Amino acid sequence: MPSNDRAVMGVLPPNLAVSLLFLLTLVSCRRQTPERPEEQLPQLTEDGSLKQPKEWETWVMVGSSTGLSYATPGAAPAAGAAPGMFHNVYLQPWAYREFIKTGVFPEGTMFVLSFYEASRKSAPAKAGFYEGDRAPGIEVHLKQAGIDKSGWAFFGFGDTTSNGTKLPGTASCYSCHATEAAHDNVFTQFYPPIRERLSTASP
Amino acid sequence: MPSNDRAVMGVLPPNLAVSLLFLLTLVSCRRQTPERPEEQLPQLTEDGSLKQPKEWETWVMVGSSTGLSYATPGAAPAAGAAPGMFHNVYLQPWAYREFIKTGVFPEGTMFVLSFYEASRKSAPAKAGFYEGDRAPGIEVHLKQAGIDKSGWAFFGFGDTTSNGTKLPGTASCYSCHATEAAHDNVFTQFYPPIRERLSTASP
Repeated sequence: MPSNDRAVMGVLPPNLAVSLLFLLTLVSCRRQTPERPEEQLPQLTEDGSLKQPKEWETWVMVGSSTGLSYATPGAAPAAGAAPGMFHNVYLQPWAYREFIKTGVFPEGTMFVLSFYEASRKSAPAKAGFYEGDRAPGIEVHLKQAGIDKSGWAFFGFGDTTSNGTKLPGTASCYSCHATEAAHDNVFTQFYPPIRERLSTASP
Repeated sequence: MPSNDRAVMGVLPPNLAVSLLFLLTLVSCRRQTPERPEEQLPQLTEDGSLKQPKEWETWVMVGSSTGLSYATPGAAPAAGAAPGMFHNVYLQPWAYREFIKTGVFPEGTMFVLSFYEASRKSAPAKAGFYEGDRAPGIEVHLKQAGIDKSGWAFFGFGDTTSNGTKLPGTASCYSCHATEAAHDNVFTQFYPPIRERLSTASP
């Protein structure tokens, strides 16, 4: 053992020293399950790109939608037509926990948006649509102070590995989220567990 | 400190004893993050009901669908009609991890099925549908050897707190899942990340 331990052992009764060391070890053990796991934190590159988050499909899925669009459709949908692609939105578990606790999206929050074909081919389904092939790429909405005047930035990822490019602040998503999102630039009106939390009194 | 520690201290050199105790503490610390958290395990009551799982909305959402039905619809859908309710399916994170690793759903696997209105009222959406109010109740599909000849059982929960009643083995869900499910009584054909895992070679 290193000399520090010997010093402790020399000054304190042996049993007390052992107890203290136990306590210290327990405290350090706690850190093995960090509240904000490293792999779930945003990692920006030097050029301002965002490294692609991994295993986001295991994060908390806060809301799914089909064919959701902010543009007026050009033509009325045909009877029985597919309702458009599925959009799933995922949030880091640690950010979800903090939001449920405080009602505030913490710094470093990332929403991942992924896309799936609306499929109806597989037996035994005789009506309705399920999530078919996933379209390449995801989008990420990151909360980070100073990254944009809104405190949030959008990043687009064209495939499953590359870094994401930050969309410029002039992109329409920024102004639309700023004016239309129900809470802190986030379309919480579309996310059942988030809506439910916001409808309760703040702590 | 208990006498066991003193015994160890008496037999071994003090520094070695401290090292050993450190090691033991570290090993026990590891258990603070169990691979299968207690609150994510099925808990059956004496009468064979299933206690309602908690915080399943934070589990891994393996697939969403809209209006999925195994019955032939009575009438063709009208143009622009809502596609039917959203169905979300959630799996315990530990069971998901084990499945991704082994390709096998472990004993104790639970799939939770929840239901949401297909809503289109909120600005700024001008097309499409998102998850509106959650319908009361969930359904659970539990894998447990001997619970049914299929090794799986279905439980229905009418609200957010009560225990779930096991559906009898004669219920149509058992026979339909037995013959139509793509893998081990589970409709994996509807779940993108599960499908993807099954399409790769087994370990």
